[in-house]
Amino acid sequence: MNAPVMEKVCAGNFTEFISLIRNLAEFEHLVPPDAAAEERLRADALGKNPRYEAYIAKCGEYAAGYVTFYFTYSTFLARPTLYLEDIFVPEKFRGQGIGRYMLSFCRGIARDRECGRMEWMVLDWNEPAIRFYTKSGAKKLDWYVYRLDREDL
Amino acid sequence: MNAPVMEKVCAGNFTEFISLIRNLAEFEHLVPPDAAAEERLRADALGKNPRYEAYIAKCGEYAAGYVTFYFTYSTFLARPTLYLEDIFVPEKFRGQGIGRYMLSFCRGIARDRECGRMEWMVLDWNEPAIRFYTKSGAKKLDWYVYRLDREDL
Repeated sequence: MNAPVMEKVCAGNFTEFISLIRNLAEFEHLVPPDAAAEERLRADALGKNPRYEAYIAKCGEYAAGYVTFYFTYSTFLARPTLYLEDIFVPEKFRGQGIGRYMLSFCRGIARDRECGRMEWMVLDWNEPAIRFYTKSGAKKLDWYVYRLDREDL
Repeated sequence: MNAPVMEKVCAGNFTEFISLIRNLAEFEHLVPPDAAAEERLRADALGKNPRYEAYIAKCGEYAAGYVTFYFTYSTFLARPTLYLEDIFVPEKFRGQGIGRYMLSFCRGIARDRECGRMEWMVLDWNEPAIRFYTKSGAKKLDWYVYRLDREDL
């Protein structure tokens, strides 16, 4: 396979991006974004103060994967962390190194922006992803994650 | 106890903030920030594009705790998440409800800024914190956390 081209999400490819997000929601057994959520996703990526960055892996005309990330902060290192929110390759494009390519693209961005780390989470049942991350050299941390949902805030 | 006053970290109380960070590093058996890290912490909180927000819980003249947080993003909800990076009460101020007060302060900020969630992590050996978070109504998630350190990026 030729290496994909990482295309920053913009007005011109936003529909492709939303299709990929829908595809991930299906894979994770989650509800896909409704029309209002789509509009927020657009404003939050393309507006004046973007809340996240998104890139599509294009293989020729095909949208063969995507990543979204933003920068968190470690008060311990006193450096930003690249936090990978989504990394996804639709089923028919798997096994061609696209995930590895996208992870390595993000590692490059983390280095360029002087991050102290890169972090992400994985669902405990997602064994192919866990194998992939283990092979990437990442460490699994001994932290528990806690959440308060909107209605409990 | 009177409720503490939550004081935003600024040039005037930055030294107090750094003392509290040193106190947390000690508690977590971590290396405290060196002079260069202190300068980055200052620029990243007080500069033009702050990377995190920090508040000190003042009980009269005493700095009785602190929180740091920033906003991540859920592509699933298409809303920001308040991510609590640090919440800490030095040992001599514990048992007076200061942690609960600071958590509730953060919940208020998450509501005001229209967050879809609030999230944080806890070290798996920190049982008092785990008990505190369980009582707060937060859910423990079935996610594993992965990290690439700077030298592995």
